[in-house]
Amino acid sequence: MYDLTIAEAVDAVRTRSVSVVELMESLLARSRTLDPALRVWETLDEDAALDAARSAQADVERGRLRGPLHGAPIGVKDIFNTQGVRTTSGSPIYEDFTPGFDSTAVARLTAAGAIMMGKTVTTEFASFDPSPTRNPWNPRHTPGGSSSGSAAGVAARMFPGALGSQTSGSVLRPASYNGVVGLKPTFGRISRYGVTPVAWSLDTVGCFTRTVEDAGIMLDALAGMDELDPASSAEPVSRYADAAVNPAPPRIGALRRFFFERADDEVAAHTDEAIGRLARAGASVSEAEPECDFDTLLAAHRIVMNVESAVSRGPDFAARPDDFSPNVRGSIEWGMMAPATAYVQAQRRRAAFRREAADLAARFDALLTPSTLTPAPRDLTTTGDASFQAPWTTAGLPAISLPSGLSASGLPLGIQLVAAPFAESRLLSAASWCEGALGHLPPPGEG
Amino acid sequence: MYDLTIAEAVDAVRTRSVSVVELMESLLARSRTLDPALRVWETLDEDAALDAARSAQADVERGRLRGPLHGAPIGVKDIFNTQGVRTTSGSPIYEDFTPGFDSTAVARLTAAGAIMMGKTVTTEFASFDPSPTRNPWNPRHTPGGSSSGSAAGVAARMFPGALGSQTSGSVLRPASYNGVVGLKPTFGRISRYGVTPVAWSLDTVGCFTRTVEDAGIMLDALAGMDELDPASSAEPVSRYADAAVNPAPPRIGALRRFFFERADDEVAAHTDEAIGRLARAGASVSEAEPECDFDTLLAAHRIVMNVESAVSRGPDFAARPDDFSPNVRGSIEWGMMAPATAYVQAQRRRAAFRREAADLAARFDALLTPSTLTPAPRDLTTTGDASFQAPWTTAGLPAISLPSGLSASGLPLGIQLVAAPFAESRLLSAASWCEGALGHLPPPGEG
Repeated sequence: MYDLTIAEAVDAVRTRSVSVVELMESLLARSRTLDPALRVWETLDEDAALDAARSAQADVERGRLRGPLHGAPIGVKDIFNTQGVRTTSGSPIYEDFTPGFDSTAVARLTAAGAIMMGKTVTTEFASFDPSPTRNPWNPRHTPGGSSSGSAAGVAARMFPGALGSQTSGSVLRPASYNGVVGLKPTFGRISRYGVTPVAWSLDTVGCFTRTVEDAGIMLDALAGMDELDPASSAEPVSRYADAAVNPAPPRIGALRRFFFERADDEVAAHTDEAIGRLARAGASVSEAEPECDFDTLLAAHRIVMNVESAVSRGPDFAARPDDFSPNVRGSIEWGMMAPATAYVQAQRRRAAFRREAADLAARFDALLTPSTLTPAPRDLTTTGDASFQAPWTTAGLPAISLPSGLSASGLPLGIQLVAAPFAESRLLSAASWCEGALGHLPPPGEG
Repeated sequence: MYDLTIAEAVDAVRTRSVSVVELMESLLARSRTLDPALRVWETLDEDAALDAARSAQADVERGRLRGPLHGAPIGVKDIFNTQGVRTTSGSPIYEDFTPGFDSTAVARLTAAGAIMMGKTVTTEFASFDPSPTRNPWNPRHTPGGSSSGSAAGVAARMFPGALGSQTSGSVLRPASYNGVVGLKPTFGRISRYGVTPVAWSLDTVGCFTRTVEDAGIMLDALAGMDELDPASSAEPVSRYADAAVNPAPPRIGALRRFFFERADDEVAAHTDEAIGRLARAGASVSEAEPECDFDTLLAAHRIVMNVESAVSRGPDFAARPDDFSPNVRGSIEWGMMAPATAYVQAQRRRAAFRREAADLAARFDALLTPSTLTPAPRDLTTTGDASFQAPWTTAGLPAISLPSGLSASGLPLGIQLVAAPFAESRLLSAASWCEGALGHLPPPGEG
C-alpha cells in the first residue's frame, strides 16, 4: 500500500478500497523500518499522523471529501511553518521553535485534504551543508539537498508526495539523485509565506512525487496568488493535473552547450540516448542555442544568493555565529562583504538572462538538459553540484526533473525540462509524455 | 503666439489659424530675447527647428496631420538621445556625443507630430549639481533640477511642452519652482530607452506643460509598452487627455504628517488655504494617514540611487573621475562603497512602502501634499530639496505638481497630487479639477 502514488491513493480512499488509516499505518510501518538508516524525518509524531488519518477517514465515511488530496499523506520540508509542530530550519538556533501558524503551502495542501504527516530533514537553513539523510539507492551516496528528507522519503515510499524549496537546485537535484519527480514552478507561482527565507528573489516552493501527474495534482492545490507573499503572482492558474493526462508528443529543445560539456561522460551519453528514445517515440527534438555565458550567470546567482542570505540570516548570525555550519556561514560572510554594485550588476545579468531564457523556452514546449552533472556522488560531505538547476532558479522559469534510467552503478539519472514563465501546463504535459516514453524506475533496492 | 498651450497650438495649426512656421518663429524670437539670461537651451539649431516647422506646415497644407501633436514644438531634456543632435547629459564627457537614434520618448512625440525644437539644459547626469539655468520668476533663485531647462523654458513661454525625467524629484520640483505643471507617471508607463540612466529602478520619464490637459496630451503620445526598456509595463494605456476634460470633483486625501511638518510656515499655511479652497469648491477632502517613516524611506531612496548611479556611471567615472562635479561624484563614490546588504534592505523598505502607498492612494482619487518645502530657494549653489517628491518616485506612483499661487516674494507655489499605480487618468482628472478651482498663474514677470 505504501507504493501508491497520490493519484492512486486518493482514488482508493475516495472509492473506499483503502482506508486512510490503513494507508497511514502502512507508511508509518515503512518509516519505522527505513528511517533509522535513511534519516528522512526531522519530526514525526505517529500518533498525530494517525489521528489526522482517522479524522480524514471519518470524513470519508460521512461522504465529506475535503478536496482532491483527501487522505494523501505529505512530507513537509522543515523550513515550512506548521502550526503547533516544531520547525527547525535544520538549525540548532530553531531547534525549539514551534510556529503559531501554517505556511500558505501547508495550509493549501491541508485545505485540499492532504495530511501533513511530519517534517522532513532539511540542510541547515536550506543551504549546502550536508544533512544526516542518506540516499535510499545507496546510503554511501548523498541524497542531495537541501530538500534531502523530502526527496529520499518519496523515493523510499515513506510518503507519496512532499514539499521542498529551491534557491539554487534544492528540489530538482535531490529529485534526480533519488530517482523521483521534482517540480519547481515559476517564481511567484506558489506562495512562500511562512517559509524560512534564504534569498527572497530566488526562493521557490516546489514538490516531490513519483509521477508527473502527481506533481500536477500537488501544483493544483499549491498554485495561486497570496497577498501574504509580496512576490506572489496574480497570473491565472491552470488545471495542471489535467495537463499531465493524455499528453501529445512535445516539441523539445535540447540544450547541449554548457550542460553536455559539464556533465560526466556517462550522464552525457545517457542523456543523448534518452533524447534518441524520445525522438523515436515521436517527440520533435531540435537543438536550442542559448547565447548567455552560464558561468557568468552562476556567479551572478551566487552573489544574489549570498547577499540576500546575509540579509535574511543577519540577525541570527549576529546573535549566534557559532551555531552556523561552515557552508552557510561562508555564504553569509561572503554576502556581508559584497559591494552593492556587484549585487546590482548580478541582478541585471539575471534580468537579461531571464528575458533570453524565456524567449528561448517559448519556442518549445520544453528545453531539455541532464538534471545533474553526475549521479548522486559517493560523498557525504557534499550535497552535490547545483550548476544545472541554478540557471532556471535564477531565471524564475518552471523546471521539472524526471527519472530517465539508472547509471552503471545502479543510481538514478534524470532529465530536466524547462518551460516559459507560467507555462507549467505545457511543462507537465511534455514531462508526462516523456515519462511515458522513458518508463518508471523500479523502487530503490529492487532494481 | 508664444503663449499658446499645446492644445491651443495644435488646434490653431489644424484649423490653419496659425502656421507652424509662425508659431516656431514666435518661440525662437522669445528664445533669442530670454535665453541669454535664462540659459534654457543646451543645443538649439534655429534653422533645423524652422525646417521642421516648414515641413510640418507643408503637411498641414497637404491635409496630412501626423498625429494629435502636429506642429507642437517641444523642448527635450539633454539626457534623451536625439538622432543626429548632440546629447551631452550635462557632462563634459559627452560634450561631443551625437547619438545615432532617437530615444523612444522622442520618437513617439515626433511620430505624433511634435517638433523636437532643441535640447534643454540638464544638471550633470541629471543629478544635484546646479546648472547655469535661471528661474524666470527671479534669476537669483534656482529653477530647481535636474530638468532645469525644460521647466524654466515652459514657464518662460519658450515652448509649450517639454520632456524631463525624475529619479528623486527632477520633474515635480522644478515644475513647482517655475510655476508650471509637471507630470511623473507610474514607473514603467513611459519607456526610458535611449535616456541616459541614473538609477534604473527609479528613473522615470515625465513632462512639463502649462496646463493639466496638455500633460494628458503629451502622456497620450508617450505612454505604452516598449520592448526596448526592460522596465516598460504592459499595463494598458488610457485616453489621458480626455480624462482632464470636464472633470468631476475629486476625493482628496490630504497627507499632513511629514509634509506639513517639513514645509516652511508659508508653504504649510498656503497649502492649508488651497485645501480649503478645493473643499469649498466641492472636492471631498479627508485626512490620509500613512504609516511609514518617511525619513527611513528617504534614506532607502538615497542608497538605491547612489548604488545604481555607481553602476550606471562606473565606466565613465573610472575613465574620467576629474570630469565629474562634486555632487554626482559624491553620489557615485558613496554608491561604490555601499554594502550589498544595505542595498537589499533599502529595496525591501521601498517595496513595503510601495504596497502601503498604493493601498493608501487607492482609497482616494489623489493624495495631496505641498509640492516643495519652500518656494525656489534664493541659492544658485543648490537645486533645492527633493524630500517631497522622492517618496513617490521611490514608490513608482504617478504624481503631478500644479501651481497653486504665489508666495509673498512673488514666487510660484504648487500642490502635488499622487495616485495609485497606473491611475494616471484619475490623477489627471483630479488635477484638472483642482486647476480649475485654483486658477492659473500669470506668466513670470507679469504678476
